[in-house]
Parts: sequence; C-alpha cells; structure tokens
Amino acid sequence: MRTRPLKVALLGCGVVGSEVARIMTTHADDLAARIGAPVELAGVAVRRPSKVREGIDPALVTTDATALVKRGDIDVVVEVIGGIEPARTLITTAFEHGASVVSANKALLAQDGAALHAAADEADKDLYYEAAVAGAIPLIRPLRESLAGDKINRVMGIVNGTTNFILDKMDSTGAGYQEALDEATALGYAEADPTADVEGFDAAAKAAILAGIAFHSRVRLDDVYREGMTEVTAADFASAKNMGCTIKLLAICERAADGGSVTARVHPAMIPLTHPLASVRGAYNAVFVESDAAGQLMFYGPGAGGSPTASAVLGDLVAVCRNRLAGATGPGESAYAALPVSPMGEVVTRYHISLDVADKPGVLAQVATVFAEHGVSIDTVRQQGKDGEASLVVVTHRASDASLNGTVEALRNLDTVRGVASIMRVEGE
Amino acid sequence: MRTRPLKVALLGCGVVGSEVARIMTTHADDLAARIGAPVELAGVAVRRPSKVREGIDPALVTTDATALVKRGDIDVVVEVIGGIEPARTLITTAFEHGASVVSANKALLAQDGAALHAAADEADKDLYYEAAVAGAIPLIRPLRESLAGDKINRVMGIVNGTTNFILDKMDSTGAGYQEALDEATALGYAEADPTADVEGFDAAAKAAILAGIAFHSRVRLDDVYREGMTEVTAADFASAKNMGCTIKLLAICERAADGGSVTARVHPAMIPLTHPLASVRGAYNAVFVESDAAGQLMFYGPGAGGSPTASAVLGDLVAVCRNRLAGATGPGESAYAALPVSPMGEVVTRYHISLDVADKPGVLAQVATVFAEHGVSIDTVRQQGKDGEASLVVVTHRASDASLNGTVEALRNLDTVRGVASIMRVEGE
Repeated sequence: MRTRPLKVALLGCGVVGSEVARIMTTHADDLAARIGAPVELAGVAVRRPSKVREGIDPALVTTDATALVKRGDIDVVVEVIGGIEPARTLITTAFEHGASVVSANKALLAQDGAALHAAADEADKDLYYEAAVAGAIPLIRPLRESLAGDKINRVMGIVNGTTNFILDKMDSTGAGYQEALDEATALGYAEADPTADVEGFDAAAKAAILAGIAFHSRVRLDDVYREGMTEVTAADFASAKNMGCTIKLLAICERAADGGSVTARVHPAMIPLTHPLASVRGAYNAVFVESDAAGQLMFYGPGAGGSPTASAVLGDLVAVCRNRLAGATGPGESAYAALPVSPMGEVVTRYHISLDVADKPGVLAQVATVFAEHGVSIDTVRQQGKDGEASLVVVTHRASDASLNGTVEALRNLDTVRGVASIMRVEGE
Repeated sequence: MRTRPLKVALLGCGVVGSEVARIMTTHADDLAARIGAPVELAGVAVRRPSKVREGIDPALVTTDATALVKRGDIDVVVEVIGGIEPARTLITTAFEHGASVVSANKALLAQDGAALHAAADEADKDLYYEAAVAGAIPLIRPLRESLAGDKINRVMGIVNGTTNFILDKMDSTGAGYQEALDEATALGYAEADPTADVEGFDAAAKAAILAGIAFHSRVRLDDVYREGMTEVTAADFASAKNMGCTIKLLAICERAADGGSVTARVHPAMIPLTHPLASVRGAYNAVFVESDAAGQLMFYGPGAGGSPTASAVLGDLVAVCRNRLAGATGPGESAYAALPVSPMGEVVTRYHISLDVADKPGVLAQVATVFAEHGVSIDTVRQQGKDGEASLVVVTHRASDASLNGTVEALRNLDTVRGVASIMRVEGE
C-alpha cells in the first residue's frame, strides 16, 4: 500500500459533512485498505468557524473555501454545501487546480451538470455525485455502469422522503394534507418551509439527473414538468383505494415509444397496490427501472439523512481515490444519444378524473361525447348520486396530456359539469 | 472514438450466451459510444457447432475453446459455460494470454474465487461477475463500489427464483410443496432435476460470493451452512400467517456482534409480512443490505433468465472494455479484513418450534424447563388441544443455533413430547 495519503478537502460541515468527517476518521483503516492508500482530511471549509465540531482538528477549519480548493495539493474535493453558488465556482476551481470532485449537490447537477462534466473532462478529473439522488441508494452507479450494456426505457421513482412520509400518512390514517404535513414537520421530516419538497422542486432536480444518465442525453431541471402534491386530498386517497391504488409523488423519466425523444416529469399519481413502489413506506425512497434486457429492477433505501448521504459520498470518495491512484478516471458524462426532451403535452398516460355534475339524465352522454371528441378513450365510468348533485368518476385509457387538457377544458364549459374535483394520473400498470 | 475494435470471445452460446451475442450485434452503436470504441465478437466456443445460431456468423463458431482464449488478440473473454471445468482452466488461460474476463459462473466463483482473483491480479487484468449473483440485479458493483466507504453488517436475500416461485405459490394458494414444485416445473421455473435450487446449493454459492464481497473476507461455498426448502409444509405457512409472517428461502450473511467473524447460511425462514423481502413475488429476487451509515437498502429484480443475465454480463463487458482503453483495472478482490467464518452453531437468531405433545397437565412446565436448561429464552407459547393430543408452538428469543439444537434434542427425549413437527428460524425483525 502507498503510504503518502490522499488529501481530501471538505466543503461544508453540516449534517452530511460532519458525518463524512466522522467516518473518515473512525473507518480510516478500512478506507485505506479499500483504496490502497490512506486518506487524510486536509481542510474543512465552513461558514461559522467558531462552532465546535467534535472530532475535527480546529486547525483544519477555514472560512476561505476558495483558498482551500486552490491549494494544489488536494486530491479530492467533497462538496456538501448545496445550492448553486458558491458551490459551482468552487467545483470548477477545484478541477482547475488538479482535484477530482465528489458532490451531493442535486440542484447544481440538475442545472449545470453538462458544464461541470465538461470542466471535469477538460481537467481530466472525476466528478461523482451518487449522493445527489436518493441519498444512500446506489442508483447512479448501477444506472451508468451496471446497465451500461442495456437500454433503459423508464425510470420511475419515489425520490423525496418528505412527501412520501406525508402521502403514506394520508393513506394509512385518512388524514388530510395539512394534518399530515404538520406531523411531518413536528417529527423533523419536513422543513419549516417545505416548498422545495411538497411542490416537487427537489424531486424534479433528481428526475433531471436520472433522465440524463438513463437516456445518455442532457436533461436539465427546466426540462422537467413539475406538479406538487399540496392539492392531494383525503378524497383522492378514497378514490385511489376504490381503484386498488395508492397515491405517490413520482418522478418519471421515459423514452418515447418511437425512441426519438424522452420526457421527465414529477407529479402525484395513482399506482396499483401490487406495484413494488406502492409498498414504500414512510420517508423511504425507491426507484423502479425498466430496461430492454434486465426487465424490471427496483432500488430501495433511505433517501436522505446525514449518515445515508455520507455513505454515498464515501463510496464515491473511495472510487475517485482509486481512480487517482490508477492514474485513470471513471465514466464521465454520457450524452452521446442527445435525445431531445419532449414537452409535457406529448406524455401519454392514463387519468382518473372526478367531476361534480348535475344529477339529471343525459349528463353521462354529454361527458362521454367530450372525451370522444378529444380522442380520449374511456376505460371505466362510475356515477354516484347525492342530494340532487352527482359525481362522475372517469378512468381513461392511455392518452396524451395535451388531449386530456383539451378534454378537461371542454368539460369545464359544459353547463351540466359543476366542477372538476380532481385529475390524477394513473401510472405503473 | 478509437476505431480499432475491442475483441470479445464468447465461451458458451446457450440461453445467456446467445442473448449476449444478439445484444452485442443489435446495440453495437450504443455499446461503442458508451465504451469509446467498437466491440467485435471475435469467436464463439460451443459444444455443438452444427446447431444453427441465428445472427452469429458460422465462421466465428469453434469447438476449441482453449485455442480461442489462447489467440492472444482477445481483449475480453465472456464465460457463460457454467460449472467448474473447463471454465476454470479457460479463465486462467485467458488471463495468461492477456484477456480480461467477464463471468456469470456462481459455482466457480463460490468455490475458487480467491484463486481466480489471484490469477487476474497476477496478469493485471479484470475479473467481473455481476451476473453470477441475482441475475440482472446490480448487486456486486453496489456492494463493492457504492458501499465501499460504509460498513456492511448484514446481507439477507432471496437469491433463487425457482424456490421463491414455489414458496410464493404455497403461500398464496395453500398448496403443498410437491404441488407447487409440479407447477413450477410445468411453467419452466424449475428444472427437471430441481435439486440445485430446492436444496439450496444455488443460493449457497451466491451467499458465499456476497459474504466475501460484503465483509472483505474470503468465504467459500463450503463455509456456507445450507438447508433446502423441501420440508416446508402448508402447516408451516399456516403457522407463519399466525405470526404475521411468510416463509422465504433466505441467504443470510452476517457480521458477528463483536465484529470478529462472519457467518453465511441458506435456509427457509419466517419473515414478517412488513419486511420488504416478504412482498417479493414469483420468481423475482431481492437482496436486503444493512450497513452502518446507509441503513437499510434493498435491490430487487429478475434473478435469472437469458436477457436479464445478459444485461448484467454486458454491463460488466462495458466496464472491462473501458478499463482496457484506460489502461487500468477496476476494483479486484478485497479480502483484507480476512474475517474467519464461524460455524452455524454460533449463529444467533429466533426460532419457531411446533411440538406434538401429550394433552396432560405439566407438559408445558416440562418443556419450558428444557428450554431454560439450555439457556434458550421463550418469547411466546401457544397450546392447542385436539382429541387427546395437543400441540405446543414455542417462539424463542434470540439464541444460538447450538443452544437450540441442544434444546430440541432434549425435547425429543421427553416422554410427553410425541414429536417435533417443525423448527423454523424467524428473521428480519
């Protein structure tokens, strides 16, 4: 084994960073054996240097992250600051000064992945980011390495633990959204401002990263259609149960049927209880992958948290260190397929639509005519009368999002339709 | 991109080999883009050259596998013959003549993994074998790369599709073992001679490979305790249901509580219905991994079949080809921890024991005394009387296999115990 240690600079020392530092210290011998050389924490960049950080030599702590990544003797920069800046500039500066980079930064990768990969290639260095998607679940490495000889057609996943906790709570207790959110907040599963989670921004960033890797194309955050889950109601869960389904916030990346384009989207959807994703409970994440040869695979585990994320960061750190010792780099960006991202209107799926309608003869015929005029084929209809009002629940066959939107707009203009109570996509069948 | 192709020799052209050849042809452009150079099928060694193989140039077919691996211009040998010989000699010969190797051979890896890795190291070549365990499920790469910075404590999996199909059928229909086996055979899920599957030999080979990788130690097939599932009865499933459990044939690799040794075993066991492995249906495989930092992960997918296995082989092929172009090798054997494998007697778990006993006062006291004398603590006891006979169902707290065996032997010697109807381990709690 080489005795000169590889030097690691840690940018950020919050929940994840402090756990990375802890494991680097407590498991130093194991890491050295697995890498073939010792690794040494050479510097830790933080915002508040006065904070006591157990187990970290205060002499290593600095507020000058830029100087740290410019030192020139750093082998690997571990970026766990998050956000776009200063993380982006620090990473590109690290490449320019000879370091490889391990990042957990989903927002940055989703927005500027191509530019960062280009900077890594230019410098002939590694950029690894397993921790950016689904925490500890090994996902990026399996997708870009294990399935490198296969053709992935769909990636569908629960990639946000906060929203899965809320939806699972609503499903199991019949609670409404607000009540379930309050519990998630009280238990620490949701942040004080839960917007990034419940509006699907976090999941959309992960969808962009997954779609890019799965389809060997560039998919940016802006390309991902996004709907949050704040409008999911207890009534929707009751409807889902009637269908033998539950509701999950899904990130779905698909290759179009003709293979010439891809789509990426995040929205709540009904999935059958028999689908492996339906049984993913609490704050767990899981990603379901469908490919030509492998068939259906699922990867399951904790999607967030200091330790799980640190596990993913350290797995990358070992790989990047091994690559440096071998004088090689691992697989970089693979975007050769360059498939365009189609707009949401071209996405084809099934829909569950609840309408409040007048309780009089002929309404169903009117409604069915509207569906037919827009080329949306109906699978089942259920009518329920209640005190002069009635509801119609329509489940469609597969139709494009554009056709469905046209249908709904026309339905709203019918005198006999009092309102569209809910529209929910049905996936995983 | 480099234009000179990498040359691949295929040893074996059965269900998996022919699918590997087919994908190499139909996805040639994708593979070339992902590798950075074209790959070319340079030879196919078969036993029956006269058989027509669609899509394979007959000029490539040979019966002389040895000559093929000795050619010297072969970059990667793909071994999908299976069995110990001639596969072992062909693989070591391939290394000696400059080729890297991708293998799907679980029996050989479980028996001679250390020697094969040594031969690969000696030749400075790669030995990859993702397809040897759980078919298409990316498992070996995640364990040895993604979790390389973590400490794995337990790997527990359903790694044989045939037996899972049979047990799932027994669970869902109440069928007995023979009836479920007959259906599995009729549907092609079980072979005419199902011994390797139902007696746990196949699963034991996979357990040996998984334990070695998870614990960075050498674990051979002989080190794996093995019990088949031919004696699991419909009554056992009824007992399991009473416990809120189902029964699976599990491969379990554990680090001892003191960290100083490991165990590996294959046997049927009850697991709670709430455990992610309980919902693995049909011929699917799944492996549950517990580690210090990542927590609980699960990998799920098809465990066998031509296409899924070919997907895993091709993922390895891409990785090995990329390594060759980079002039590097991937992670080899990691056995630095060199933990010894403890015998089955030291395994600690819980047990579900059904006893047929005389229906008279004092029997429970006698039985309880025997458990106490052997240091096995009882969790629950359920007595059921029926026509002068009675049954006692005892569920224990955690105890060593040796203590449990001593207990059972002593129970058999009690006059009031007519028989031990079943003993089943309880896992995953």
